[in-house]
Amino acid sequence: MKINILTLFPEMFNGVFTDSILGRAREKGILDINILNIRDFTLDKAKKVDDTPYGGGAGMVMFCQPIFSALEKIYGLEGKSKNKKILYMSPRGKVINENILRDLAVEEEITILCGHYEGVDQRVLEYWDMEEVSIGDYVLTGGELPAMVLVDSMSRFIPDVLGTMESATEESIYSGLLEYDQYTKPFDFKGLKVPEVLKGGNHKAIKLWRLENSIRRTAKFRRDLLDKWKINKTGTEDLTKKEKNNIEKILMEL
Amino acid sequence: MKINILTLFPEMFNGVFTDSILGRAREKGILDINILNIRDFTLDKAKKVDDTPYGGGAGMVMFCQPIFSALEKIYGLEGKSKNKKILYMSPRGKVINENILRDLAVEEEITILCGHYEGVDQRVLEYWDMEEVSIGDYVLTGGELPAMVLVDSMSRFIPDVLGTMESATEESIYSGLLEYDQYTKPFDFKGLKVPEVLKGGNHKAIKLWRLENSIRRTAKFRRDLLDKWKINKTGTEDLTKKEKNNIEKILMEL
Repeated sequence: MKINILTLFPEMFNGVFTDSILGRAREKGILDINILNIRDFTLDKAKKVDDTPYGGGAGMVMFCQPIFSALEKIYGLEGKSKNKKILYMSPRGKVINENILRDLAVEEEITILCGHYEGVDQRVLEYWDMEEVSIGDYVLTGGELPAMVLVDSMSRFIPDVLGTMESATEESIYSGLLEYDQYTKPFDFKGLKVPEVLKGGNHKAIKLWRLENSIRRTAKFRRDLLDKWKINKTGTEDLTKKEKNNIEKILMEL
Repeated sequence: MKINILTLFPEMFNGVFTDSILGRAREKGILDINILNIRDFTLDKAKKVDDTPYGGGAGMVMFCQPIFSALEKIYGLEGKSKNKKILYMSPRGKVINENILRDLAVEEEITILCGHYEGVDQRVLEYWDMEEVSIGDYVLTGGELPAMVLVDSMSRFIPDVLGTMESATEESIYSGLLEYDQYTKPFDFKGLKVPEVLKGGNHKAIKLWRLENSIRRTAKFRRDLLDKWKINKTGTEDLTKKEKNNIEKILMEL
């Protein structure tokens, strides 16, 4: 998968895309990340890329020419008519979720435009059929961090990016409940102990403890998710009738 | 404000916290960002920081000792009893919004723990009274990008971080509607033109055009936000009766 990123701050991506899972995916050739500096494309003599907004108001708006030129470099002069996926990171956009990420992960090539200042000229978005995408209902200095968040969360759905032991779909947030509490060695750390059930090898008991723990965490932090989960109760299919009743009892108490 | 960040990947922060508004805030001394490498604190001979989870399952869990030692360096050996704000970035946590960010922005010192692998030992979170905080309902490779997103979006609420021309509270997402379309020079770019109303100096007409445009954008992309906005209709207080009626008519059609 090829990912083109258009930004005014290419240096911001240096540390992030070399480390960890993304770095490995790039080394393995699964991800080809191509970062373009929008400023390299401006025809303005003073290397300007933004100007004051029509109609007044604070801030500066990135103007058309450098972004058009950068996109024409990627897609060619007739690029507009091509089938392509160009995202603009913006608090106006659809907030990313599992479905959006899965759909993106099967694309062969995507381009991400990172805005700054008060945004970009609307003609850029309309002419290039850009999809506006957001990472959440808060405002950031620019589109660079959202682009990194998008690439990281999406790449987990690309086959072979995660190791065989891991699986993006097994992440609990995608099954509707929050993750259960995790513990590792030592069993006793400064008098703080791991719950006994996790120490024994009773896999059924461990599974039930984790499910109950997930339900309680979700009730505490994300009542909205719990209410949705209650409709299908994903993960309880294999339980005995008695165990199911027990889950119902817990849900009643919460 | 002092921000301590505990991470296994300190290099990831290099490019991000030096550029743009955050870099300026650090130079001006408003923000003091202190990045600690958790691995520097491990007493394990092989420099290990994680181990397999109790109860089985994929992935590795970061163990207590290095994180306890790093926090004791920040808060002292009696640190647990101190009044402090420690956040753990996790998809389990409360999703950040304007209120959470505002509350954080008045703290004198916060510490952010970035998890990796399958998370951290639950005893870390409980002993240190950590608050779990999320940036959205998707899964990332680690807590580093979420920590950057948190610091960036929060710092906009710290006085003097933004310039006088800008204001975090004026961002439209915080008033309940999405931002209106922006345009800048030239008026005609390859035959694509700026809406006429924005060219003239009729401030009242421009304000109305922008409000209507914001409403239409919000209806298209974020019906959930529009439904909430309809309750108070923030931003329409100064309109004439005729203008208000016009807004009602638009809302009926959407």
